[in-house]
Amino acid sequence: MAGLPAPLQALIDAFERLPGIGPKTASRLAFYLLRQPEEVSRQLADALLALKSATTLCPICFNITLAGQERCEICADPRRDESLLCVVEEPLDVLVLERTGAFGGRYHVLHGVLSPIEGIGPEQLKIRPLIDRVREGKVREVIVATNPSMEGDATALYLRQQLLPLGVRITRLARGLPVGGDLEYADQSTLLRALVGRQEL
Amino acid sequence: MAGLPAPLQALIDAFERLPGIGPKTASRLAFYLLRQPEEVSRQLADALLALKSATTLCPICFNITLAGQERCEICADPRRDESLLCVVEEPLDVLVLERTGAFGGRYHVLHGVLSPIEGIGPEQLKIRPLIDRVREGKVREVIVATNPSMEGDATALYLRQQLLPLGVRITRLARGLPVGGDLEYADQSTLLRALVGRQEL
Repeated sequence: MAGLPAPLQALIDAFERLPGIGPKTASRLAFYLLRQPEEVSRQLADALLALKSATTLCPICFNITLAGQERCEICADPRRDESLLCVVEEPLDVLVLERTGAFGGRYHVLHGVLSPIEGIGPEQLKIRPLIDRVREGKVREVIVATNPSMEGDATALYLRQQLLPLGVRITRLARGLPVGGDLEYADQSTLLRALVGRQEL
Repeated sequence: MAGLPAPLQALIDAFERLPGIGPKTASRLAFYLLRQPEEVSRQLADALLALKSATTLCPICFNITLAGQERCEICADPRRDESLLCVVEEPLDVLVLERTGAFGGRYHVLHGVLSPIEGIGPEQLKIRPLIDRVREGKVREVIVATNPSMEGDATALYLRQQLLPLGVRITRLARGLPVGGDLEYADQSTLLRALVGRQEL
C-alpha cells in the first residue's frame, strides 16, 4: 500500500488522538479540509492555538474563563443566587446545565471525581476551595451534580460528609427515566431508581 | 444562560464546521482539549497549517502528493502496472482502494463527478487529462470506480463513451451485497443488482 504524503498523515494522526474520532472519521476530516479553502483549516488552527493562552480558570468557581479576568461571568453576575451552589465534575457540565436555563445559582467545578484506582484523592480536586467557599456562610444549599456513576456517587458521599458539619442543605440531582426514553431500553438500576423515586401524578 | 469565553466558543464553532461534527461533539472536543496539555492542540494546529502549503496534486494522476515532487509515489513506482488505470472521484478513494492491497495498477482522480444541477461538467473535472493519458497508448484497461450513485453512474457512462473509441477495455466495480451485510437490510436496487450479477458457487 502506498503511503499518504506526510503532512496529510500527520493531520489524520492528530485528529485520531481526539476522543470519539476513529481512523475513518480522521481520514474523512483531513480529506474534507483538503477540498476546502485554506481559510477553513486556518480558522480551526487559530482557535486551537488561542485556546490555552486566552483562557484560564476562575479563581472562585474554577470554571473556564477569559485570561486576565478577575472572576468568571457567572461569579461576577449579581443576579445569580449566591446561596445556591451547584457542584459539577467538569466545565462542560456547567455549559450543559446552563443550557437548561433552569438554574439561577452559582457553580463549583471539581475538575474530576475521586478515584482511588487512578490515584485521585480530595487533594487533586477543587474540594478544599469548595469547603472554604461554603464556610464563608453565604451558601444555604449545595446541589451535588456529579455524574450518576460509581465515582460520581462516591464523590457526592465524600462531599456530604465534609459539608454536613457546616450546616448547609445538601442535595443530589434526581435519578429516573430519561425524558423521551423508553421503558423497554432502561437498564435495571435506572428502572429501580425510577420506581423508588416515583412521584404523585 | 451565561456565554462561554470567546476563545472556547470560537473553537467549538470551528469544529462544528467540519462534516459529521454536531454541536455536542464540537463542545466535547473543545473541552477535551482544554483538559489536555497544550501540546495536543498545538500538534493539531500545526498539522492543519501545513496541510495546504506542504501538499499539491500529482500532475499525472491528480492524487494528493508532497509539494515540490515531480509526481506522486504511485506514479513514480515502476512496479505498478501502468496498463491498468483505476478512475476514482476523490483522493480519499485512492486511500480506500490501496487499503485493500488488491490493486497493483495506477490511479486517476477526477476530483468530483458530473452534476449538471451543480454546474459541474467535464471541464470542471480531470477528464481531459484522463483521455490524454489513455491516448498515449500504454493503458489497456480503465476501471471506473466512481461511486455507485446516480452521478457516479452517469460519469461512468460518459467516460465509457469518451474512452471506447480509443480501443481500451472499460470495466466498473461489481455491485452486490456488502460483505458482512444482511439480506434483510439490503435496499431493493442493491438486491436486484446482486440477483442479476449472481455467480456460480
